[in-house]
Amino acid sequence: MARIKIGVIGASGYTGSDLVRLAACHPGMEIAVLTANSHAGKAMAEVFPHLAHLKLPTLIKNEEADWSKVEAVFCGLPHATSQAVIRELPKHLKVIDMSADFRLRDAAVYEKWYGGAHQALDLQKDAVYGLTEHYRDDIKTARLVACPGCYPTAVLIMLLPLVKAGLIDASDLIIDAKSGVSGAGRSLKQNVLFCEAGEGLSPYGVASHRHSPEIEQEISRAGGAQVIVNFTPHLIPMSRGELCTSYAKLKGGATAADCVAALEKHYKDEPFVFMAPKGVMPSTQYVRGSNNVMLGVYADRVPGRVILISTLDNLVKGSAGQAIQNFNLMFGLPESQGLEQVALFP
Amino acid sequence: MARIKIGVIGASGYTGSDLVRLAACHPGMEIAVLTANSHAGKAMAEVFPHLAHLKLPTLIKNEEADWSKVEAVFCGLPHATSQAVIRELPKHLKVIDMSADFRLRDAAVYEKWYGGAHQALDLQKDAVYGLTEHYRDDIKTARLVACPGCYPTAVLIMLLPLVKAGLIDASDLIIDAKSGVSGAGRSLKQNVLFCEAGEGLSPYGVASHRHSPEIEQEISRAGGAQVIVNFTPHLIPMSRGELCTSYAKLKGGATAADCVAALEKHYKDEPFVFMAPKGVMPSTQYVRGSNNVMLGVYADRVPGRVILISTLDNLVKGSAGQAIQNFNLMFGLPESQGLEQVALFP
Amino acid sequence: MARIKIGVIGASGYTGSDLVRLAACHPGMEIAVLTANSHAGKAMAEVFPHLAHLKLPTLIKNEEADWSKVEAVFCGLPHATSQAVIRELPKHLKVIDMSADFRLRDAAVYEKWYGGAHQALDLQKDAVYGLTEHYRDDIKTARLVACPGCYPTAVLIMLLPLVKAGLIDASDLIIDAKSGVSGAGRSLKQNVLFCEAGEGLSPYGVASHRHSPEIEQEISRAGGAQVIVNFTPHLIPMSRGELCTSYAKLKGGATAADCVAALEKHYKDEPFVFMAPKGVMPSTQYVRGSNNVMLGVYADRVPGRVILISTLDNLVKGSAGQAIQNFNLMFGLPESQGLEQVALFP
Amino acid sequence: MARIKIGVIGASGYTGSDLVRLAACHPGMEIAVLTANSHAGKAMAEVFPHLAHLKLPTLIKNEEADWSKVEAVFCGLPHATSQAVIRELPKHLKVIDMSADFRLRDAAVYEKWYGGAHQALDLQKDAVYGLTEHYRDDIKTARLVACPGCYPTAVLIMLLPLVKAGLIDASDLIIDAKSGVSGAGRSLKQNVLFCEAGEGLSPYGVASHRHSPEIEQEISRAGGAQVIVNFTPHLIPMSRGELCTSYAKLKGGATAADCVAALEKHYKDEPFVFMAPKGVMPSTQYVRGSNNVMLGVYADRVPGRVILISTLDNLVKGSAGQAIQNFNLMFGLPESQGLEQVALFP
Repeated sequence: MARIKIGVIGASGYTGSDLVRLAACHPGMEIAVLTANSHAGKAMAEVFPHLAHLKLPTLIKNEEADWSKVEAVFCGLPHATSQAVIRELPKHLKVIDMSADFRLRDAAVYEKWYGGAHQALDLQKDAVYGLTEHYRDDIKTARLVACPGCYPTAVLIMLLPLVKAGLIDASDLIIDAKSGVSGAGRSLKQNVLFCEAGEGLSPYGVASHRHSPEIEQEISRAGGAQVIVNFTPHLIPMSRGELCTSYAKLKGGATAADCVAALEKHYKDEPFVFMAPKGVMPSTQYVRGSNNVMLGVYADRVPGRVILISTLDNLVKGSAGQAIQNFNLMFGLPESQGLEQVALFP
Repeated sequence: MARIKIGVIGASGYTGSDLVRLAACHPGMEIAVLTANSHAGKAMAEVFPHLAHLKLPTLIKNEEADWSKVEAVFCGLPHATSQAVIRELPKHLKVIDMSADFRLRDAAVYEKWYGGAHQALDLQKDAVYGLTEHYRDDIKTARLVACPGCYPTAVLIMLLPLVKAGLIDASDLIIDAKSGVSGAGRSLKQNVLFCEAGEGLSPYGVASHRHSPEIEQEISRAGGAQVIVNFTPHLIPMSRGELCTSYAKLKGGATAADCVAALEKHYKDEPFVFMAPKGVMPSTQYVRGSNNVMLGVYADRVPGRVILISTLDNLVKGSAGQAIQNFNLMFGLPESQGLEQVALFP
Repeated sequence: MARIKIGVIGASGYTGSDLVRLAACHPGMEIAVLTANSHAGKAMAEVFPHLAHLKLPTLIKNEEADWSKVEAVFCGLPHATSQAVIRELPKHLKVIDMSADFRLRDAAVYEKWYGGAHQALDLQKDAVYGLTEHYRDDIKTARLVACPGCYPTAVLIMLLPLVKAGLIDASDLIIDAKSGVSGAGRSLKQNVLFCEAGEGLSPYGVASHRHSPEIEQEISRAGGAQVIVNFTPHLIPMSRGELCTSYAKLKGGATAADCVAALEKHYKDEPFVFMAPKGVMPSTQYVRGSNNVMLGVYADRVPGRVILISTLDNLVKGSAGQAIQNFNLMFGLPESQGLEQVALFP
Repeated sequence: MARIKIGVIGASGYTGSDLVRLAACHPGMEIAVLTANSHAGKAMAEVFPHLAHLKLPTLIKNEEADWSKVEAVFCGLPHATSQAVIRELPKHLKVIDMSADFRLRDAAVYEKWYGGAHQALDLQKDAVYGLTEHYRDDIKTARLVACPGCYPTAVLIMLLPLVKAGLIDASDLIIDAKSGVSGAGRSLKQNVLFCEAGEGLSPYGVASHRHSPEIEQEISRAGGAQVIVNFTPHLIPMSRGELCTSYAKLKGGATAADCVAALEKHYKDEPFVFMAPKGVMPSTQYVRGSNNVMLGVYADRVPGRVILISTLDNLVKGSAGQAIQNFNLMFGLPESQGLEQVALFP
């Protein structure tokens, strides 16, 4: 079967390069276009030497791309910059956006959190929220998929089935989130220098992180009532990986075992979502580099409360991997194709 | 003034070695005895090469120690092993215990969490809980001080003033705790190998960590009612440092600003407890190697809730540093003596 | 085509688990037997949770294995223990040994460095040294392949073509080697604890590392005269990766450019050996998790000297990856099959 | 005794902040002026939160400084920018420069390596090279001390006594150097991002590092003949620490034991230079945060060769600590004052 020609817009960031890492081994994809305005003219080998042995197109500017033979575009641009670029793309292209630009259904919420009016509201209407396990059917027929943020993916895969099943109280959620440094991207900022982030641990975005409205949108939708959640991220001295510890009140006499049963039922046929094996705590090490999500449910000592732990690789299931999973659905390929890589441990 | 001769029991662990690191520069101390049963006969230089340039006594077995000229003993033995050793020490010795053995006032609670009857209950009665900022007067006259656990120190310094002032609801506390690997000690366990703990993040002791009853004991005492808290620790890929993110409900219309005011008032004359400077999040990097505690208070987006962040170095204020701070009080020395070292950053 | 049934002896170490990680995605392999005497009876998920989502046989003792339908065995046992195990294996099995037991052609050298007489000398005679790029034809027909050590692989891929071409002086080689901590295996040793190896750098095995005779055997063979090399390894605070900086004297007026040309010519059709792209220094990050080797050659400021830098992932090309590369050759499969994974960066 | 008022020019870099960390605990110093042009007007607490609890002057521009009551200035500016600033300082100030600007005695060498003519050649004439253990008498009476680079300090403390004693061949030296990331300073560069430098190892400045001429200047001087050395640095994923592995030919039948004896004799009364204890390899962990240098000498397996390993903390003995050691000498204070801090391990 002919490989599907794809393009990557914004290929010089970490999500872009991880998309290329996975796409290069995907039997149904051919990387035809790579853009990166600030690095246009360079070989990918120069920007990401770990990709040097691959035959890849040279980086070009967005406007130089010839999209005529391309069928799908992955967009790895920073938030607030994708919308204008995606708006101008030829309509024959299916688009998988890894930025936040099309995740929020309510334009007012977008404007409030991202500090400016949305520039492609007409596209927003048709965008599908790309949390694969929960919007699979919509994704199959979508032209534009807005892949969820890394934190929302980890949080929602854990919480949505429990909220939908009425097992936990959606109005009283505390989400303590921890992420590796790659979540901050490759741009030069003092707090992500090795000497600043290494051998240390810092909270950030406390009560102000932009993944909050995205989590609230989906939890509210699942629970049928508008909620505000606590969401508190922390920067961890590791490159990849994300772990969210969510603290919830059980509803109507539900137990931790009920939560486990609900999750096992919901995800029993999923290729990438698993409960932690007996005796093992979900840990970022166990999913690093893979598209897997590992879940664990623990009864709290505080009566009526439960501790919900979910972990994934922020660049894979939290971004490029889920994007490819959605691509597979959109093009009728086996959903796991190109994503079978086992986690790299140690 | 003559230096006070001290001994360290269990000097081959990380708390023991950090005690020696600090004691060696303390102008009022002379290290006279170092014991470590499993390393008896070795030079400290062999066990801890970073101490090789110091003139230190050779490691001996506990029973070989000549305590006659010693005035104070620091005990760095593992939990459940200190009590029997401390029980047999000559009565002229003041004892600063860094283990958990004398922290819990209720023998039944001790037995439940540590899995065996306490072997020195008579001593337990007179032991003072060594959270310096909250038990200073008792410590001054104590013979036996039980230094708090590292997590309880971080948590209680933040929460006790707020509970006492009635600003937060002590019955609804969620404490998400993060620690560097040195908290696990120097013994050989698979989960603390570099390849297992590095570049990764793992929860542990979920709903079962032994620092829970210690936190509950003190919160209950401060609030006047028995409480159960959520306490969920996580292992972070760094050697030193601890950060606790506590989530609380505000009481009676209190605000985050009220919490800040209460903490500032309570700690305004303290040498080691500080609010994070404006624009800075408390981070372990900023206290590494020092006896300092850094605090931050943040209004949650969820109405009526507050996020409370405290950080310290688990081996210093969380163990050996606080032990020396207590020693200074017990012997009438300036409280900060030997503890002025500035945090090592980067 | 039917998958070839394989077994892994010693599957509970890091080389064993990395073999499983790669084999699980290899289209020509089926993992039929996994042994680990100390973990017999456990599920692999319990020993290596990152493999939990794979369908794998339960770990058993070596003697419980049914080898009748198995065609190839990978052996990941510690040095000096493989020989006795391999000696007893049924003769229909092809064996790829990742230990040091069959690497040294001279039994006296083995005995000197490994402290005991070899127990399977008859097998040693037929063993092929599994440095794929240099013994490809022998490997194709071998029953027993002794995969090189991780350091020798990095060093020899760089040096052999230069020695053979007479460009460098084999009798004056200084090899400063650096390795991540996984090279030390998963056994519990104090120096590989996170707190001991983290944020620090230690030489080890100075003038005594067991990879020295292996390097010398091959360099001597290539150069036609017995040599002794300096080989000095250092432990680096990272889990995976190895980089060797070799310092050599150029011979007969040769230049660094001549070395580059010789390497490019020698490896031009190799799937896994590459020169670093222009402007990029070979770095472990760029090969992590992959079977690639990256090489760089630099003229020294000291006239007539050259600096030769080679890097690989010690668990992949340095062990399990090269083992699979050899397996592919032994069974007539495409040499790169199952090894196309791109390096995981960051 | 009145404390000596000091100033720090360029206090917003890592060497500046480490100077402040140490100076704040130095009983003979008072920090009177802190300058940092790009951060003028800020509190030090904002720029370096680990110093927040100290009472420190606000950062000002160089030209705003009132030097009238100051006696000594430490200069932590980047290379090539100090000379113009130091040239303009009032003559009553003693100056301890931590940049490279006054290290090279030969203006032509400076110009060649730093790419521009020196702007304060008249001062250069009187500058003393501040390698304390080797230029102590000159330093005592100097007005301007040029503290050595971090690498040259580690290398020269090891090699100078051996070259002077004629034990090693100064014309055949290979120096493989490894440094933590703080050596690169706090400026924003891609290669020192956590995700780029973490879990990886990169050579840099191969055959072109600016510390080469400094090493060569001093080795040539000690040996009485101009030499060129191999000097190859590598970036290690740790914040602090430096270790140099030097490979040398022994001269005239000398042995490794002769080298040990020469070093022990040369440094026997030094407060900060030590041989590694028996059975211990010099490692950066053992000197982190301290002003100590640890040395180890090992006979190579290659006859007539020796392996020389030296380690220090690049920000302390490699910069701010040695600067204070020199300050102590210049002002007649005990040489170790303010520098007794024990290494922070783990």
